[in-house]
Amino acid sequence: MYSSWESSNPLLFGCGTVAQTGEKLRSFGCTKVIVVFDKGVQAAGIVDKVLASIEEEGIGTVLYDNVLPDPSDILINEAGQIAIDEGCDGVLAIGGGSAMDTGKGVRILLTNPLPINRYFMGFGAASVHEKELKPLIVVPTTAGTGSEASPGAVITESSTGVKKIVNCPVSLGIIDPELTIDLPADITAYTGIDAFAHALEAVTSRMPNRISETIGCAAISNVFCNLEMACKEPKNIEAREGMALAAALGTCCARGPFGHIPHAFGGGISKNYQVAHGLTVGWFIAETIRWNAPMAQKQTIAVAKAMGCDVPKGSTGAEAAELAVAAYKGLLKAINFPKMRDVIPNKKDLLSHMDDIYPSPAKIFFAPRSMTMEEATAFVERCYDEE
Amino acid sequence: MYSSWESSNPLLFGCGTVAQTGEKLRSFGCTKVIVVFDKGVQAAGIVDKVLASIEEEGIGTVLYDNVLPDPSDILINEAGQIAIDEGCDGVLAIGGGSAMDTGKGVRILLTNPLPINRYFMGFGAASVHEKELKPLIVVPTTAGTGSEASPGAVITESSTGVKKIVNCPVSLGIIDPELTIDLPADITAYTGIDAFAHALEAVTSRMPNRISETIGCAAISNVFCNLEMACKEPKNIEAREGMALAAALGTCCARGPFGHIPHAFGGGISKNYQVAHGLTVGWFIAETIRWNAPMAQKQTIAVAKAMGCDVPKGSTGAEAAELAVAAYKGLLKAINFPKMRDVIPNKKDLLSHMDDIYPSPAKIFFAPRSMTMEEATAFVERCYDEE
Repeated sequence: MYSSWESSNPLLFGCGTVAQTGEKLRSFGCTKVIVVFDKGVQAAGIVDKVLASIEEEGIGTVLYDNVLPDPSDILINEAGQIAIDEGCDGVLAIGGGSAMDTGKGVRILLTNPLPINRYFMGFGAASVHEKELKPLIVVPTTAGTGSEASPGAVITESSTGVKKIVNCPVSLGIIDPELTIDLPADITAYTGIDAFAHALEAVTSRMPNRISETIGCAAISNVFCNLEMACKEPKNIEAREGMALAAALGTCCARGPFGHIPHAFGGGISKNYQVAHGLTVGWFIAETIRWNAPMAQKQTIAVAKAMGCDVPKGSTGAEAAELAVAAYKGLLKAINFPKMRDVIPNKKDLLSHMDDIYPSPAKIFFAPRSMTMEEATAFVERCYDEE
Repeated sequence: MYSSWESSNPLLFGCGTVAQTGEKLRSFGCTKVIVVFDKGVQAAGIVDKVLASIEEEGIGTVLYDNVLPDPSDILINEAGQIAIDEGCDGVLAIGGGSAMDTGKGVRILLTNPLPINRYFMGFGAASVHEKELKPLIVVPTTAGTGSEASPGAVITESSTGVKKIVNCPVSLGIIDPELTIDLPADITAYTGIDAFAHALEAVTSRMPNRISETIGCAAISNVFCNLEMACKEPKNIEAREGMALAAALGTCCARGPFGHIPHAFGGGISKNYQVAHGLTVGWFIAETIRWNAPMAQKQTIAVAKAMGCDVPKGSTGAEAAELAVAAYKGLLKAINFPKMRDVIPNKKDLLSHMDDIYPSPAKIFFAPRSMTMEEATAFVERCYDEE
């Protein structure tokens, strides 16, 4: 099977580009924008830096500093109502995936009826007309989620706790690697592994695509050349640039061939435990590489090479997978990535949630190799026990 | 010096994607579009293929089949007037760079006063407001110009013969590699080398950028893995995909760090001789790699590696450049790329046009190493005499 590829929304990339935020908002015709962020990003001084560029252009601002991890429909509806009441004609989101996802939700609500729940993807979802939307600029402050390069937003339905998706285009993503130099090592590590997962899943998808493979391998190579350095020397701007690039490209490459096992199974973990997204995803990567290798030989070899492995000519997918797994485990060790069993001490409890982790084969439709429920359970156990 | 990078307009990539043209035009709200192309593309049956998808959506069409190489202002104004008179609300361009550039010109004229000359870049140029433009889809049928991934259009000013630039955003580029399988070997070769030149110039620019380097090296690698095969086995769809990808990425990477010597000098040749663009550019590549190497060591090494050269650790830029030049010359031989002296037999006549080839140092501002007029003349002579 073969997929086509659609490019992401417009991106502006480079050190210092955040200073262009105000100018870009003005070129979009904005006169008063709601700025959504969380208190951590504000404390890091990033919000003030961006606000300065907006004020320079004489654009009014309404500040919403209440973004929380895994933002809920309640939060989005609140921020959306504020934007409406204040007469905003644009949205600016500054932060990680949660802030950018909040920005996307607010963008929808600014010109479409509340609540955001009407737009959750699935049967009967209300449609959003791009033409009528007000401009949205997103400014990522982590390097991993890649939300700046995707229309998708993940919003938690508060009545059920289920994560839902809404799709909202982004007018511009401004990726300024300098904004990430104060990220602590653990968040750098978790978000960086998330970027790797996006690229790995796209490249080894059941529906491969030439451009996704090319961009995905570039993302993977950037993770393996830069993530350890970004964790160990936070102010190393070359390493931060490489990771900012990896995050954007990791999401760009997944615009066609979609993700599979690590994100599907990681989502099941998140539903039951309060664990950082990058961690839940990272725990399933090694076994995913092994599992898919027989059905994605060429792609597994390409991934291993992009990771920097010296893959001998004539290697099988399984042989390349072992090299890739060794390289991946080496990276996890170097960045002090916690093991699943250290974060979730009760294995029996974990396995009692298999219905959330692997609710149906459709959940991993884009994986090149399918699984029975028994195979999935054994797979999760292997990930848990992994050395 | 350091540059930022802006992504290109939206792209849709993949075999068979051209069948989505009608659907995409409809999603943009078009009801009647002007379709611009040349007679060669029509004879190849490509236009009919695209028209079928448009008719399926009930969208009306006005056909303009008079696109010519290096389109002039006269041609653009003519096509623009037809689009206005016919009440078109969208533009579709099918073909190589000339057709796509014509499409961009027509898009401007559809909602802005004629003639196109008002919008030639430079002091006093009239501005174009993106918001007021009608949709434009471009469908490339060659793999090289990359015009599908850039707002730039080259239009010949008929009163002076000078090539001018207008900038017009593109709503969507639809890149379907299957459209290129009937391209003759020589056009495949010339356009493919043009794609390589775009990437080489961006990666070795005076203002490098991390994302441009990453994307540019991916483009270069795709040229060196696929161009020979695309010339020798025209129906090899994997090779055609690789080249379609190289062309788009070659232009994407030049969105920030701009081109330099090969395109600047090649433009001077075009002004005086009727020679395919890719040829004029290709003749200057080998010497450009050598010339810039001392000032762009790291980038030259990256380029050589992307070309597939085995660059020993600790190599200097000059050493990497020699490896790259050897690989480049090997490729030219394999694709039967004509030498400059075989196309332009009179060297003295060529050198009498140095004022067009190297009018001023500003022409190669983005090259990492500058040139005097004497150096430029010696440079051109070396390119001419090259074995």
